[in-house]
Amino acid sequence: MITSTSNQQVKNLIQLQKKGKARKEQDVFVAEGLKMYQEAPEDRLVKTYVSESFYKKQKEKDIWKGEPIEILADRVFEAVSDTRTPQGILSLVTQSHFSLTEVAAGASPLLMVIENLQDPGNLGTILRTGEGAGVTGIIMSSETVDIYNPKTIRSTMGSVYRMPFCYEEDMERVMCELKNRGIRSYAAHLKGTEAYDKQDYRGGTAFLIGNEGNGLSENLAGRSDTYIRIPMCGKVESLNAAVASAVLMYEAQRQRRGA
Amino acid sequence: MITSTSNQQVKNLIQLQKKGKARKEQDVFVAEGLKMYQEAPEDRLVKTYVSESFYKKQKEKDIWKGEPIEILADRVFEAVSDTRTPQGILSLVTQSHFSLTEVAAGASPLLMVIENLQDPGNLGTILRTGEGAGVTGIIMSSETVDIYNPKTIRSTMGSVYRMPFCYEEDMERVMCELKNRGIRSYAAHLKGTEAYDKQDYRGGTAFLIGNEGNGLSENLAGRSDTYIRIPMCGKVESLNAAVASAVLMYEAQRQRRGA
Repeated sequence: MITSTSNQQVKNLIQLQKKGKARKEQDVFVAEGLKMYQEAPEDRLVKTYVSESFYKKQKEKDIWKGEPIEILADRVFEAVSDTRTPQGILSLVTQSHFSLTEVAAGASPLLMVIENLQDPGNLGTILRTGEGAGVTGIIMSSETVDIYNPKTIRSTMGSVYRMPFCYEEDMERVMCELKNRGIRSYAAHLKGTEAYDKQDYRGGTAFLIGNEGNGLSENLAGRSDTYIRIPMCGKVESLNAAVASAVLMYEAQRQRRGA
Repeated sequence: MITSTSNQQVKNLIQLQKKGKARKEQDVFVAEGLKMYQEAPEDRLVKTYVSESFYKKQKEKDIWKGEPIEILADRVFEAVSDTRTPQGILSLVTQSHFSLTEVAAGASPLLMVIENLQDPGNLGTILRTGEGAGVTGIIMSSETVDIYNPKTIRSTMGSVYRMPFCYEEDMERVMCELKNRGIRSYAAHLKGTEAYDKQDYRGGTAFLIGNEGNGLSENLAGRSDTYIRIPMCGKVESLNAAVASAVLMYEAQRQRRGA
């Protein structure tokens, strides 16, 4: 059992929780909580750390997956946890690597193209809702918040293990790739004149979603096939990015179900 | 200018930020940030507190509404602010008081009935999205998180000033009131067999949304007219409460627009 926060593994875990650079260099991320552990693919689990209390309660149960387990004293676990009331389990999981071609694959893909989103909870919620709505892949601009941020991971509720995604430096290349594949792109934009529910999303479809404060850049929005808007009553000027995404993704699902 | 955090007004502001009980006793809440100030109804502004820096920059501008202004030294403002990087303005605003009858009024109301929601951000997002979707009122069980929580207020982006809402102890009475008014109620429930988009929401409609972890109580869900479900692909078991609400509210808006 590790009883000191100056242990090298503990120091490294803290770095991995805080820094995208450390995660990238080691090609892993930290998945915290029992649900994230239960949903983790066995072949991507590198190592699991548990608190002493958690281990005492759970060691006889049929939850373990065969990777190395390390026990941390409760207060050491608290020091590495990203949550206020830690459940007592976190794992190192290998990062996934999809190419743009893989993310955009399939007969009638349903894609989210995300530019410069900054809130980790919003990104995680888009992954979770996206999996539910039948989204087949997520493409993010390189300035978008790190998908392996602990808050993002938690709010995906496990979808991060299953949703294909990639980060791209060159968003013009992304838009060309979509066009080449016959995927129609729709920019969610306050200037949109077409109501989102008047379009046909049954073929290959990509929704473009911009930054929380500033929306999509003119450069990216201008390369889309259609500007769409979500009608808003009252004095509401815009919707939360994860909410706007949900409305669009579920409209696509509704059409694809033949509703 | 107030320069000490032991000033009585400062102490009281800190209490009002932290404690629902203090807010209730004084019948006010704290609205923080420039947008919340700009959208505040003048007749509900009790007093506004600004940081010295904010006041120096803004005093000549045409943003002021006539209520008493108090200047706080920057570090005193930081002590009363609920945000990490305070904009430098917050106001005391009187609470609103709607009866159940007022909230449920109108020819074809579109209502959200919220049971025991605990996340302030989720509640605030439901208000914001609700105003955008055309929701006419929000009814909350008394165990639901305080709508005047600073995090809720911020995430409403001003909708809290405009959306009629009430807290109710007796949810059975609420359901009777809905029935008496001919408002159909739909429980968002994992056991629902009816897809949400196969129902007609053009008449009086109430969506029932439960707690993040546990969903709706059997008691409340059992009193609804119809259990509905939001179809989910992949391994997703449920959606975030604010996202599920958004999908339902915008489906109602879509139908009411005659789509």
